[in-house]
Amino acid sequence: MNVGLVGVTGYSGSVLYELLRRHPNVDQVNLYGHAQKVAQSLNEVLPQLRSRSSILPYDPVEITKNNQVVFFATSAGVTTNLATPFIEAGFPVIDLAGDFRLKSRETYKKWYKKSAPKTEYLEKSHYGLADFYEVNDAKYVANPGCYATATLLALAPLIQNHLVDTSSIVVDAKSGTSGAGKKPNEMTHFTKTNENLQLYKVNQHQHIPEIVQQLQIWDKSVPYIQFTTTLLPLTRGIMASCYAKAKPEITEDDVRNAFIRTYSDDTFVNATEGVFPTLKQVVGTNFCDIGYQLNPVTHQIVIVSVIDNLLKGAAGQAIQNFNSMFNYTPETGLDLTPVLP
Amino acid sequence: MNVGLVGVTGYSGSVLYELLRRHPNVDQVNLYGHAQKVAQSLNEVLPQLRSRSSILPYDPVEITKNNQVVFFATSAGVTTNLATPFIEAGFPVIDLAGDFRLKSRETYKKWYKKSAPKTEYLEKSHYGLADFYEVNDAKYVANPGCYATATLLALAPLIQNHLVDTSSIVVDAKSGTSGAGKKPNEMTHFTKTNENLQLYKVNQHQHIPEIVQQLQIWDKSVPYIQFTTTLLPLTRGIMASCYAKAKPEITEDDVRNAFIRTYSDDTFVNATEGVFPTLKQVVGTNFCDIGYQLNPVTHQIVIVSVIDNLLKGAAGQAIQNFNSMFNYTPETGLDLTPVLP
Amino acid sequence: MNVGLVGVTGYSGSVLYELLRRHPNVDQVNLYGHAQKVAQSLNEVLPQLRSRSSILPYDPVEITKNNQVVFFATSAGVTTNLATPFIEAGFPVIDLAGDFRLKSRETYKKWYKKSAPKTEYLEKSHYGLADFYEVNDAKYVANPGCYATATLLALAPLIQNHLVDTSSIVVDAKSGTSGAGKKPNEMTHFTKTNENLQLYKVNQHQHIPEIVQQLQIWDKSVPYIQFTTTLLPLTRGIMASCYAKAKPEITEDDVRNAFIRTYSDDTFVNATEGVFPTLKQVVGTNFCDIGYQLNPVTHQIVIVSVIDNLLKGAAGQAIQNFNSMFNYTPETGLDLTPVLP
Amino acid sequence: MNVGLVGVTGYSGSVLYELLRRHPNVDQVNLYGHAQKVAQSLNEVLPQLRSRSSILPYDPVEITKNNQVVFFATSAGVTTNLATPFIEAGFPVIDLAGDFRLKSRETYKKWYKKSAPKTEYLEKSHYGLADFYEVNDAKYVANPGCYATATLLALAPLIQNHLVDTSSIVVDAKSGTSGAGKKPNEMTHFTKTNENLQLYKVNQHQHIPEIVQQLQIWDKSVPYIQFTTTLLPLTRGIMASCYAKAKPEITEDDVRNAFIRTYSDDTFVNATEGVFPTLKQVVGTNFCDIGYQLNPVTHQIVIVSVIDNLLKGAAGQAIQNFNSMFNYTPETGLDLTPVLP
Repeated sequence: MNVGLVGVTGYSGSVLYELLRRHPNVDQVNLYGHAQKVAQSLNEVLPQLRSRSSILPYDPVEITKNNQVVFFATSAGVTTNLATPFIEAGFPVIDLAGDFRLKSRETYKKWYKKSAPKTEYLEKSHYGLADFYEVNDAKYVANPGCYATATLLALAPLIQNHLVDTSSIVVDAKSGTSGAGKKPNEMTHFTKTNENLQLYKVNQHQHIPEIVQQLQIWDKSVPYIQFTTTLLPLTRGIMASCYAKAKPEITEDDVRNAFIRTYSDDTFVNATEGVFPTLKQVVGTNFCDIGYQLNPVTHQIVIVSVIDNLLKGAAGQAIQNFNSMFNYTPETGLDLTPVLP
Repeated sequence: MNVGLVGVTGYSGSVLYELLRRHPNVDQVNLYGHAQKVAQSLNEVLPQLRSRSSILPYDPVEITKNNQVVFFATSAGVTTNLATPFIEAGFPVIDLAGDFRLKSRETYKKWYKKSAPKTEYLEKSHYGLADFYEVNDAKYVANPGCYATATLLALAPLIQNHLVDTSSIVVDAKSGTSGAGKKPNEMTHFTKTNENLQLYKVNQHQHIPEIVQQLQIWDKSVPYIQFTTTLLPLTRGIMASCYAKAKPEITEDDVRNAFIRTYSDDTFVNATEGVFPTLKQVVGTNFCDIGYQLNPVTHQIVIVSVIDNLLKGAAGQAIQNFNSMFNYTPETGLDLTPVLP
Repeated sequence: MNVGLVGVTGYSGSVLYELLRRHPNVDQVNLYGHAQKVAQSLNEVLPQLRSRSSILPYDPVEITKNNQVVFFATSAGVTTNLATPFIEAGFPVIDLAGDFRLKSRETYKKWYKKSAPKTEYLEKSHYGLADFYEVNDAKYVANPGCYATATLLALAPLIQNHLVDTSSIVVDAKSGTSGAGKKPNEMTHFTKTNENLQLYKVNQHQHIPEIVQQLQIWDKSVPYIQFTTTLLPLTRGIMASCYAKAKPEITEDDVRNAFIRTYSDDTFVNATEGVFPTLKQVVGTNFCDIGYQLNPVTHQIVIVSVIDNLLKGAAGQAIQNFNSMFNYTPETGLDLTPVLP
Repeated sequence: MNVGLVGVTGYSGSVLYELLRRHPNVDQVNLYGHAQKVAQSLNEVLPQLRSRSSILPYDPVEITKNNQVVFFATSAGVTTNLATPFIEAGFPVIDLAGDFRLKSRETYKKWYKKSAPKTEYLEKSHYGLADFYEVNDAKYVANPGCYATATLLALAPLIQNHLVDTSSIVVDAKSGTSGAGKKPNEMTHFTKTNENLQLYKVNQHQHIPEIVQQLQIWDKSVPYIQFTTTLLPLTRGIMASCYAKAKPEITEDDVRNAFIRTYSDDTFVNATEGVFPTLKQVVGTNFCDIGYQLNPVTHQIVIVSVIDNLLKGAAGQAIQNFNSMFNYTPETGLDLTPVLP
């Protein structure tokens, strides 16, 4: 089949393009520039890809005609406007931006400072947390955010199984600069980021509402989370160090069994008790590695999950949703080489 | 006065040497190698210092004769053996290692896997948390560990004022490689550390017992802490991101007032509500910058403190203790230039 | 076919393993540990590869029986001893180490400080500079060194076409730490390499003799080269900045034509006049990008070539030689994704 | 005395401020914003300095009234306009920008793409290469550029003593990002600079004309230089790797004697035969370390010099010129601590 991709010039767009190009079930990847009126050579904007492809002008009619699905790897706010014809036509969309992840328009507006899509569209969209939900018949997949993916995968076993005090959840998340956007600004100037740690949007990161929304689906009693984000002097990767207070009666066995039950069949998520992952071990891959441990004295549980923010946190998970949507096996097109050494 | 320094070749030793050299009240810094039998040229082992000094053979008699105080910047286990003559003679010692920080020999042995000094010596030693304790008449100052300093300064206002549930304390600490030791090993190989985050000694770091010891002095009810240490791809700095659940009746005002009361007179510690420090802003200085915030929904408090691990976390605090010991003003010899930009 | 690989635990060995695993014409990669007597789980030594394979004990009889070719990614000095049975049997070997690259035993001993293989073996070995030489009937391929690859690809057009004063060649080469060896030492300690540039083995690097050997094949008059190597604070990549004085009569056209003639048909080498490559643009790929320019005032030519030292400088070029040996098309198994962004 | 400083917010301006503040002969540093109409708190724009100073509105009358000298650490193009009243009044100026370094207006315009100052002003300005020239009676000091300083110090002994073929000079220079400007742009985005080397302005860097101008003063026969600049993934430091062909009759002794003669009395420049410096060993100091070696086979000389681009390459050399201008000893205010470890 042919697939369309809008937004190849962004970080996750370029990574997604490379995955789609090599996907066994994809014949051709058609590129479209969402703000483009004329065709542009991909090699001009992304010479690193050494591609002879063109980025075609944006045309929803052409997109639906020449492809069986379209991926949007655009900035927040773009699909709110552009998705409508596809939704109306029931044409499959996998959207890497945040526009359709939240069910509540007010919450979206509060966090993204933009107008949200129509409620009926939000209701139809499927939150694509691929390790937990098959796409089934959904036509609009809202691919989760990177921080959200790392955090939800870490917390799922504990929250689903009601093992912790839900008001004690702390997430200390750390990300490389490829999660901070392509546009040069003061914070990501090399001189500012190098040899430095910079907190930003403490308790304000726009991934918080989708994390809370999903946690509340698993356990209504989750009021909120403490969420700290720190920018690291490295390019790729997210580490979410999560902490939660176990309920008094919960034992190490309960914790272990929860992680085993949740992830033993999962292709991409690996959870190990007492062994904590390094960030680099997942970079270049679609894996999420998790280490967890119940502290016998304080009865707190530490859960550390690592992902490649552009793969498991974006393009890789998009491919998982694509495979689910079209009934390919979960690991199709995702047998990736880690970045060695 | 003249001062003696044992251990100039270690990271904190070399930084301490540079501070002592420039201290207005120090005439001469005499260097001694704790395992040396003959004099050695400092320029041979540390050419970076461009010094013509010699490292003299170790001789406690000579040390006490030619100096008014001796600093030890040696590895854990050295002062346990070498400090005895000085303690017996009541000769002033400032010890940057962990040997004399703990009051309990069993605790020391459990965490450091080495024999501890004699109990009577431990009882006499002064835990040199300089922003809280003057040295007064104490002759043996045990300079706190770097992680311990960052953590204690962050938590002090909340613990001293009993504002939090003491079993909810979480410390997510991150350090540069200059805190991880000079000896090449697999973990600190550039290829391993670069572009990576590595957790180590989770809940096992040897700074934990001194942190708990001090917290328990402030509030007996502190049972333990959850303490995670992560190695960062940068050279200098420690960030301790701390979390604790406020007691139900505690308000933002209570939190703010605690920090203001604790630090308003402090030369080196700056705490600001809602403004979180970057790591780099303290590197090269003896400052500890702290940002804190009470989360209105979860009622958790996040406190982020940053220090330069070799200065505030070691050599700088040693100078603070030196100033206290000899009644110099607190900032003497500590007007340091940050590493710009 | 099945292939054997000895030395998977080294940096280039692990990268080579990943390439062979995905090579369309390779059914199975059999791993052997050159110093191993019993089988070992690959996951124990290289968990990053998430592999269920075993590293089998070393046995040349088993190797020749179960494979059609064997790759050695061992340290210098190993194949000098181990290659004999394969050479005697005429069994195909692709050797990533330096043992068989030089034709002169004295030169080898002088540079590597080790005994060289027998002269008759050296004579039979094929220097696998893949963009210039097909393997044809050769059975023993000595894969060039990484610095040598970058340098020879940069200089070939000028030397083959006798465009420069051969005593004016200057190579200022810069490499990431993955080229400096896995064993932790003082130089590659993160604290030493970070924020630093370190020259090493100036005019003494063991790649110099093979560079000179090859240049002299193209032009006898090359006496030697000035070769500076600098260690960079990054993991992967080599940049060779080369300079040579053009002969008085040589023009820009001559230079341009030489590069075009040499590389227009080459799959992997791209040379552009006046456009200089960044290091990162080739990392993760088997490409060598070159920028060159004749300085109209000084009549010097600057040529900057970049490669991924573990791919084009080692494993990737080994696959090129493998493809040549078995008549696969040049790019088979080498359609690699750059490390984005 | 009091000194004025215009441009404290730039990288070299902030470093210069820290040096002036601690200079034994400076009572007060008055700050002025060249484009400011009202006073501004320094802490607002540079909180890292933790200063209570103000940046006063720009007023040349006030500047000359309240200070004995004014330093300009502004961008190129500013002093061309603002310096006039000071030059007319013969008021001492030390200018860190490039506006007054070149004697030829055409050359300046060609390289900086801006209008140059008047010829009579250019004639009066003193090129402040402090290790070679005392300021004497000059009132306007044009502080050399960072790349220029590293390069001229490396080449001086060879050029002054006419030991090399002047048309063979190659400079392969590498700089950290603090030399590339504070304004965020694509090149210095962390994601672009990290793990990368980027050549820029090859043979076009605006420091080239001042390097050539100075070399030609030492030896008219210098036609030009080959000058390559590479941006490194680190913050501070410049390494200039220089190469030149020795004249046929020149020996190792000639080269060694030239370096010894040139630098044996120099406080800040250290040249060693056969020992090459690392970049970091000078960072935080005003030293320039040089390693050199004559290659016996190719008869080329390699000279590697390293400086801290913001100190020896800017603010530190400005203090040297200040000391010279006011007859303070050369090292006054320049006893700086290296950045350890």
